[in-house]
Amino acid sequence: MTLPSTLDTAVTTVSPALRAAVDKYLCPEIAAVARYHHGWTDASGRPAEARGGKLLRPALALLSAQAAGATAADGVAAGVAIEFVHNFSLLHDDIMDGDRTRRGRATAWTLFGVPQAILAGDALLTAATTVLLDSRAAGAAPAAKSLMAATQRMISGQASDVRFERRGDVTLPECVRMARNKTGALLACACSLGASLVGAPADLVQRLNDFGEHIGLAFQLIDDLLGIWGDPARTGKQAGADLRARKNSLPVVAALTAPGSAELRSLYLRPDPLTEGEVHHVAGLVERLGGRDWAQDEAARQIAAAEKNLGAAAIPDDVRDELRELAGFVTGRRF
Amino acid sequence: MTLPSTLDTAVTTVSPALRAAVDKYLCPEIAAVARYHHGWTDASGRPAEARGGKLLRPALALLSAQAAGATAADGVAAGVAIEFVHNFSLLHDDIMDGDRTRRGRATAWTLFGVPQAILAGDALLTAATTVLLDSRAAGAAPAAKSLMAATQRMISGQASDVRFERRGDVTLPECVRMARNKTGALLACACSLGASLVGAPADLVQRLNDFGEHIGLAFQLIDDLLGIWGDPARTGKQAGADLRARKNSLPVVAALTAPGSAELRSLYLRPDPLTEGEVHHVAGLVERLGGRDWAQDEAARQIAAAEKNLGAAAIPDDVRDELRELAGFVTGRRF
Repeated sequence: MTLPSTLDTAVTTVSPALRAAVDKYLCPEIAAVARYHHGWTDASGRPAEARGGKLLRPALALLSAQAAGATAADGVAAGVAIEFVHNFSLLHDDIMDGDRTRRGRATAWTLFGVPQAILAGDALLTAATTVLLDSRAAGAAPAAKSLMAATQRMISGQASDVRFERRGDVTLPECVRMARNKTGALLACACSLGASLVGAPADLVQRLNDFGEHIGLAFQLIDDLLGIWGDPARTGKQAGADLRARKNSLPVVAALTAPGSAELRSLYLRPDPLTEGEVHHVAGLVERLGGRDWAQDEAARQIAAAEKNLGAAAIPDDVRDELRELAGFVTGRRF
Repeated sequence: MTLPSTLDTAVTTVSPALRAAVDKYLCPEIAAVARYHHGWTDASGRPAEARGGKLLRPALALLSAQAAGATAADGVAAGVAIEFVHNFSLLHDDIMDGDRTRRGRATAWTLFGVPQAILAGDALLTAATTVLLDSRAAGAAPAAKSLMAATQRMISGQASDVRFERRGDVTLPECVRMARNKTGALLACACSLGASLVGAPADLVQRLNDFGEHIGLAFQLIDDLLGIWGDPARTGKQAGADLRARKNSLPVVAALTAPGSAELRSLYLRPDPLTEGEVHHVAGLVERLGGRDWAQDEAARQIAAAEKNLGAAAIPDDVRDELRELAGFVTGRRF
């Protein structure tokens, strides 16, 4: 699958602004951690070969400004702010989850220590607000409030996620709410923040927000499916990685809470690690209990709901097409 | 020493607003961590006997609004926001420093785990911005920018502090800059945020800010003196606690960088712990090398500079007196 051209635009316009904002707002020591985390430098501080993240959220933020009749350039501050909040959350989540690698690279806390990684996250969150308020755009303050509200929901989702790891009785509605907060809130904000920043009418901002929230939940459902049945060559993760880590992912919770789940429960909720044979067996059980079908159907329902919001929004046709293309890219990964 | 009455006003007016903001903006799980950390509940979630923190920074924020001719009530959002940022930093610093107690209570991370304590800090930082922007005050956006700039400096100070722990060659100017960033920036913001929020002229905001920055550095110098020579009954810390922890505090760095510091350096910078006799001996060396005198003199110079800013600011006399009284309270602790 080739990358949508909108992502190239985001990389071209938002990348330099992201780097400039790191230079401007972060102290040199913490900026070094942020640059490594963003993928711009290697562990020794030298420029990295990789082009860094895909900048999906900034791309959505630029389109969101264009949806309101402004230019992509008008949405750049929204793109920088949403990417900073996204990376703040990754820096802190990697510490909380004890993850030592991300996209094939050592996580920041393993190289710079937990204190510097906590501070780098704090600094990016702090800078995200400043970037919006410094933009002097018509909707700077409402945009900052919207971003902080989404951040608060994301924190709530992560708090639930951490707690769910210690519980064997998570219900499917709880798990869906967690995913909406943890993944949906920030994607919803990405899809509406540019519009909010340029002062778009409230009903347009709401439509774009709802579009993004549905896409976000679809994305999480598909990410969870890939975490069990994904092709390691495409996902970069070992097959069954989420089962081995005993994650309360959406297909698994759907299966655990389905009738006849006794065998799955006894295997999945026991303290000892799963053998490779058991990982394979658990994947089969989740599928037989309907977890895979439910997640695929629910993702399709969320994509349809997102489409509906997009269709009802008063936005230029070419922007609608680009939003649809990006949504397809986010949710269309094969497994 | 009795508490200045301004602190009573802060407790009466800001406490309920702080609690309401925690209820409103934080998810229930993270709110529980924040309530414990603020001292409102005990470890099991029951209301605590203690009245919580002194609310020094909110008291300064209310006076800052009054300095600009507004009422204390007009500064409440500034008081809540600055206290949230202060507590965000304490929650995260306790994790970074591995501190297990604060003011005689178990720190949040030891009770709720590192992930929930990181998230509680994140949530308070996020809520601080929202409280200001939701206030709809004339200077809401500039106040939020000022608070985020101070937060960024505080993060920079903490990053230096963490790094200095691993270095034996910290210079006195570096150490003073670290203290200005870590302690001075937020106190400066506390002293100006209320004025900024109510839309005061830039020169008044600047005077109040400078006043607070000098008070903040004086406060840190005196805190560092108390960490070596303080009366344990008054400070709540063991005598010589900062020496035992081998902190690069201001009097110590002044002594380490003075001529004739070879004996102090070899004792203080060696890897093995200090015996009780050595702690006592190190305190004597720091004093003989001039570290105690320098810190006391520098604190006096900072207080004089603060006074000068206060005298030059166009503010009502009764408010000036109250600011002076609070400054005296902050910097006047005997040792």
